[in-house]
Amino acid sequence: MRSSILVQKFGGTSVGSIERIQSVARWALDSQARGERVVLVVSAMSGDTNRLVSLATQVDPIPQSSEYDLLIASGEQVSVGLVTLAINAEARKRGLALPQGRAARGLLGHQIGILTDSVYSKARIRAIDTSVLEREIERGVIPVIAGFQGVDDEGNITTLGRGGSDTSAVAVAAALRGRYEQVDCEIYTDVDGVYTTDPRLCPKARKVARISYEEMMELASLGAKVLQIRSVELAAKYGIPLHVRSSFDPVEGTWVVAKEQLGESMENVVVSGVAADAAQVKWTLQNVPDQPSVAARIFGALSEAAIVVDVIVQDISQQGQLTVSFTVGQADAAKTRQVLEGLKTADFRDLRIVERAGLAKVSVVGVGMQNHPGVATQMFKLLAQSDINIELITTSEIKISCLIDGNRTRDAVQALHSGFGLDRLEGVV
Amino acid sequence: MRSSILVQKFGGTSVGSIERIQSVARWALDSQARGERVVLVVSAMSGDTNRLVSLATQVDPIPQSSEYDLLIASGEQVSVGLVTLAINAEARKRGLALPQGRAARGLLGHQIGILTDSVYSKARIRAIDTSVLEREIERGVIPVIAGFQGVDDEGNITTLGRGGSDTSAVAVAAALRGRYEQVDCEIYTDVDGVYTTDPRLCPKARKVARISYEEMMELASLGAKVLQIRSVELAAKYGIPLHVRSSFDPVEGTWVVAKEQLGESMENVVVSGVAADAAQVKWTLQNVPDQPSVAARIFGALSEAAIVVDVIVQDISQQGQLTVSFTVGQADAAKTRQVLEGLKTADFRDLRIVERAGLAKVSVVGVGMQNHPGVATQMFKLLAQSDINIELITTSEIKISCLIDGNRTRDAVQALHSGFGLDRLEGVV
Repeated sequence: MRSSILVQKFGGTSVGSIERIQSVARWALDSQARGERVVLVVSAMSGDTNRLVSLATQVDPIPQSSEYDLLIASGEQVSVGLVTLAINAEARKRGLALPQGRAARGLLGHQIGILTDSVYSKARIRAIDTSVLEREIERGVIPVIAGFQGVDDEGNITTLGRGGSDTSAVAVAAALRGRYEQVDCEIYTDVDGVYTTDPRLCPKARKVARISYEEMMELASLGAKVLQIRSVELAAKYGIPLHVRSSFDPVEGTWVVAKEQLGESMENVVVSGVAADAAQVKWTLQNVPDQPSVAARIFGALSEAAIVVDVIVQDISQQGQLTVSFTVGQADAAKTRQVLEGLKTADFRDLRIVERAGLAKVSVVGVGMQNHPGVATQMFKLLAQSDINIELITTSEIKISCLIDGNRTRDAVQALHSGFGLDRLEGVV
Repeated sequence: MRSSILVQKFGGTSVGSIERIQSVARWALDSQARGERVVLVVSAMSGDTNRLVSLATQVDPIPQSSEYDLLIASGEQVSVGLVTLAINAEARKRGLALPQGRAARGLLGHQIGILTDSVYSKARIRAIDTSVLEREIERGVIPVIAGFQGVDDEGNITTLGRGGSDTSAVAVAAALRGRYEQVDCEIYTDVDGVYTTDPRLCPKARKVARISYEEMMELASLGAKVLQIRSVELAAKYGIPLHVRSSFDPVEGTWVVAKEQLGESMENVVVSGVAADAAQVKWTLQNVPDQPSVAARIFGALSEAAIVVDVIVQDISQQGQLTVSFTVGQADAAKTRQVLEGLKTADFRDLRIVERAGLAKVSVVGVGMQNHPGVATQMFKLLAQSDINIELITTSEIKISCLIDGNRTRDAVQALHSGFGLDRLEGVV
């Protein structure tokens, strides 16, 4: 086993301009100068992926082939190129002795063998070949890896879904873990840590010092866009501590760790965070025949189209007919409509499809919730006091979510944040 | 040997917007519907490469590594993705029976093995593996290939230099030539053919119906930016007729063919075209020691840095000291300055470097020139009559070039076009 490795992941805003890219270059070389062996994973420059997605959907509203991935993966290619050029330029400026004439080397997904399945635009990493990485690390060269992208068995470029660069970083850390004594992972973003809720929605939001993988997963899946949920899952599986921190401010951020490494304070808190997920679309299917295979048929068709269904609610059967409701993100709405219309033609001729867009999901999360009954009741009461209607409710062991009118998101988050005592929470930061 | 193949190359303006990309998609499918087996080669959307180059040079004024190529190759990746998505969308709209569920497949340089050397940003194609291409063609799928890019032995992405997509297209045509009975190559651009001079500089410019590879090469190297010179060279070598035409207007364009296939009319014309190359920088090196190895040392260092030196003039030696002048394009000016300063420090301590930017090269070209003495004299006279000073002169068998003040380019081109009778040339169009 050789020394330790520090994987540093820089998100879109952290490489969002030439100045930011030059700052990343200085930061990486400073880390190296302190004796760290650094591996970088970078996202596309902020706004770039949106620009590419918009181009693609102008050509085809429901882009269906691997070329969609090929197209949007180009954003990370640009930032890999720029960050690498910036590190090399900065290293020359500092007069560093450069192994192989370079301080950094840019590597795309297919160049280091980030092998994924073929579920385009939502691919999952199967394996990473670390041989090229290790060679560069041993030479003292900083590998600059394109996040978000991989390659499938047939050599097609794949992408990992929104926020996929986090998963790339954790996967790289996990792959290197077998080869180096210690592997840490820093996630640089535009906020300085994980907050009790989104500070843009609630000015009284407070930074959390440590949070468990489990809570972070609930928060991630609920729209706290700090980390992609799969990256947290992967970090939990391999026990890789994540340090979420700001690329604009060197202060300590939030550590995402195993529950056992959590201090006492958090465990005693009933609700540790409030999350909001905008742009949800609710679908209600009426006149669904009440047969055992029906749910499998509907949700099977949706999952085949790689649509992530969130909340599912099924009403009690009346006269052999069911009503099924579920939500998907706005981005999947067109694809969902197509799948449902297809089902109507094929199997369910009487099906009535009601679509309601512009909703938001607000949730409260906390590991302490398991031992405190009545959290749900308190949540409904707090929303009712603010005159906010609840469209759908769903719960898990450590979270409760309500679907509401998207225009009332801010009011709901502030009411819940105050109501559950997060405004004045002690010992969190 | 199997039937025929039509390689269609679309330049930056031809894929410069969503509308243009959709028009390319319709055009390709229309060609296919007529029974053609089509292979597409596409450039980056117009402006995109400039945007990427500007980003790179902001990070590093003289980008030195393969990451520069990795970065700027992303432009073609975007247009490959968009054109492929557009063809597939259009095919679905037309209700075509789609082999493998798709009408087109996007392919990057590394995915079809466009193998090049490692001279980054000016790489040369060594070989193309046609197996993937042939498989798609035989399936009835249209391959959409990224122009401008390849991959070297080590898996690094390389690019072929400005206009390199033309060369990609001709190289693909040449590679397929051994496998199919007939391979034609259409170059779609924003002009409807090759003109006697640049119509933006001279309103009396006229379209040429047929032109020889040789003349086209001289015109290409002289700044008529219709075709990259290496693509013409390659087309001549493999005898591939090029049809240069507009993607905005279906009229017949200009055929670039072997001299033997040229009609009579052109051969009788003394000067068949006037070219202008803007943004030239002239370097004058004074106090160069007059030793045999000196020229090799200077121009060797420049060519190692992959700088293309154009005109070279050497004065007669005076007291063991030489004066050497040469020109390079503005884009290579910073790199040239660095190389020359390096030489001064290393070998030539007395060297005086004089740099003069803002020049232009105007040239007259014609295969008929060889049998007509006095063309040079007439050119100097025409420029003198317009009060235009000549900085440098250089000649070949079928062209004469003069370096002049860049601000006088338009006047010079118009004077030469009229003076050599091109305004009223018969039988050209």
